[in-house]
Amino acid sequence: MLAFSIEKPGDNYGKVVTIPKPTLDGPGFALIRVLRAGVCNTDLEILQGYMGFTGVLGHEFVGIVEEVHDEIDAEWIGKRVCGDINVGCAACGVCDKQYDHRCSQMGRNHCPNRSVLGILGRNGTMAEYLTLPVRNLHPVPDDMPDEVAVFSEPLAAACRIVEQGLVSYNDPPDKVAILGDGKLGLMIAEVLGREHTERVGNGQDAPVLFGKHEHKLQLVNDTGVITKLIKDCQDSSAFNGVSPAYAGKFDVVVDATGSPDALALSAALCRPMGTLVLKSTCASTPEKPFNSAPFVIDELKVVGSRCGPIDKALALLAIPDSDPNRRSLNVAKYITKSFPLSQADEAVRCAAERSTMKVQIICNEK
Amino acid sequence: MLAFSIEKPGDNYGKVVTIPKPTLDGPGFALIRVLRAGVCNTDLEILQGYMGFTGVLGHEFVGIVEEVHDEIDAEWIGKRVCGDINVGCAACGVCDKQYDHRCSQMGRNHCPNRSVLGILGRNGTMAEYLTLPVRNLHPVPDDMPDEVAVFSEPLAAACRIVEQGLVSYNDPPDKVAILGDGKLGLMIAEVLGREHTERVGNGQDAPVLFGKHEHKLQLVNDTGVITKLIKDCQDSSAFNGVSPAYAGKFDVVVDATGSPDALALSAALCRPMGTLVLKSTCASTPEKPFNSAPFVIDELKVVGSRCGPIDKALALLAIPDSDPNRRSLNVAKYITKSFPLSQADEAVRCAAERSTMKVQIICNEK
Repeated sequence: MLAFSIEKPGDNYGKVVTIPKPTLDGPGFALIRVLRAGVCNTDLEILQGYMGFTGVLGHEFVGIVEEVHDEIDAEWIGKRVCGDINVGCAACGVCDKQYDHRCSQMGRNHCPNRSVLGILGRNGTMAEYLTLPVRNLHPVPDDMPDEVAVFSEPLAAACRIVEQGLVSYNDPPDKVAILGDGKLGLMIAEVLGREHTERVGNGQDAPVLFGKHEHKLQLVNDTGVITKLIKDCQDSSAFNGVSPAYAGKFDVVVDATGSPDALALSAALCRPMGTLVLKSTCASTPEKPFNSAPFVIDELKVVGSRCGPIDKALALLAIPDSDPNRRSLNVAKYITKSFPLSQADEAVRCAAERSTMKVQIICNEK
Repeated sequence: MLAFSIEKPGDNYGKVVTIPKPTLDGPGFALIRVLRAGVCNTDLEILQGYMGFTGVLGHEFVGIVEEVHDEIDAEWIGKRVCGDINVGCAACGVCDKQYDHRCSQMGRNHCPNRSVLGILGRNGTMAEYLTLPVRNLHPVPDDMPDEVAVFSEPLAAACRIVEQGLVSYNDPPDKVAILGDGKLGLMIAEVLGREHTERVGNGQDAPVLFGKHEHKLQLVNDTGVITKLIKDCQDSSAFNGVSPAYAGKFDVVVDATGSPDALALSAALCRPMGTLVLKSTCASTPEKPFNSAPFVIDELKVVGSRCGPIDKALALLAIPDSDPNRRSLNVAKYITKSFPLSQADEAVRCAAERSTMKVQIICNEK
């Protein structure tokens, strides 16, 4: 089969190669014919050596179950599915604790022996076929287009913030800031904007999305968030460079920038004892060192947030335009371009351009 | 009066100087004749320029109220007191929120206009006199020696972890690791060891204190913690250099090392979705950069923790040796040496030596 693969870590841009079609890993597994895959910023980082990954890239997908290992899973055959990307060993203490009162949603995502689709020890989605355990699969509603279903994974990552209970909607609801108008920041705006509208109603307490690009901010005008250009909230003469109108004004600040500057900026926006959610990762550099003092002095709570519930994301994507009570998500507007799998190298190059939003790869025609 | 003062930021080791006795700042204030002051690691950092502080150093003290501004506070005159070191403006939105459901204990400690005794815009405790608002004061029990009462401030910082609710004692109780056997780490062991014994009982789930110094670890043998030499839990061949017996085994890890290595070590000891408490501050260096990836991937919760409840600390210090149900705190054993105020420069030099535990300064004879 065709696949887009990294042969050695940091082997920039990878290659379209022909490799054997995968076989079922063992009991509980399914073979999935991939219809579409999405390109994510993490994929671009992996291409530059992050995680030291080799193999087939990609973790966003929609596909059709073609084969299952066990008779009992036969009902899945022919179903269109999306999937959780973390494959736990189902045998260790962490997997056991899946339903522990303190470890809700821990299970498979945090198994120390896990593999992760296209990220850690498991071939990913930019291929004609992939395998996953049946327990990772979620059926896609019949009327949902493939190009929409592919958004379930990145949208789930945004839903994870709600699942972790990091935003309080009690009266008065938390004031939320989202930093970054890249794909991830916009997905978070889609989720937290809707969540706020449905649980609190519109109003001055709506989440604020800070970004650098007017045209990207405009994409989430219908989500219930307020958008602000970062430069309009900066003030070089003010403490920490953040205008007094915003400094310390937020109960929760979500960082989706991937920038080493963002930790200091987030801390400046957050009130004392507030919550800072890390959706993207960053590292200090000699020029931009990290200092924990502001976090200790202000007693901030910094919480990492990673993969989320695919089923909740699919339910959001399934809101029909005709629903009078909920605003549907028009994620198709985020797609800059789609490429056939044979041109996956070009797809990845396109995804790396600054003006690009989502790039998708067509892995099989239906 | 005599005082130990920093004349310009980073003016290493300061000077004993004669300055005017302070006058009452205004309504609500008290003039306190300082009996004893303690030297803390933060003082040593301030001497090296931290916070850019100038003025009288020191924030640990016990003293006697000599004068009050308002007739209504006359009952405080002659009382022996310790005090909260943060002085809020009592007029801003943060001070108002003192009793807000989400901002408990926020108030004065996080007022953006605050001054902090010997740390930020307010002369400290290494002097014959200081001033504080009466609302910051806590009476000291008559039978508590001065040298014990001075420990109320550093012990309160340890109590803050309990006050923030960062350790769960539900069944099964959180497994807690404390990193660092300096003064702060040992105070935390005193508090969390006792808290565990009283709420859970002794047993294999007792908090573990990791340190580098056998003789310091021995000081907390009677607190209910288990002590381990860090070198005995390291394994250079293991993932993250932490032996598999400890890696990922703790629900809560408290960092009291002040070392830039500690964030990575803490993350390695903590289970996925566990809590990392930052009691000390640290900064990345070009040789020891900070990378947020492990925190995001493991969805850790990192919480800053600063000043705590002086009244709770005084109550702990007041447990009599004769109490059959609670173990008394023998903090006097931590005092390496006491110096008269006229030799405060020597006191500070002594405190900076690696083998020194607590140094105290006698500011006035009783």
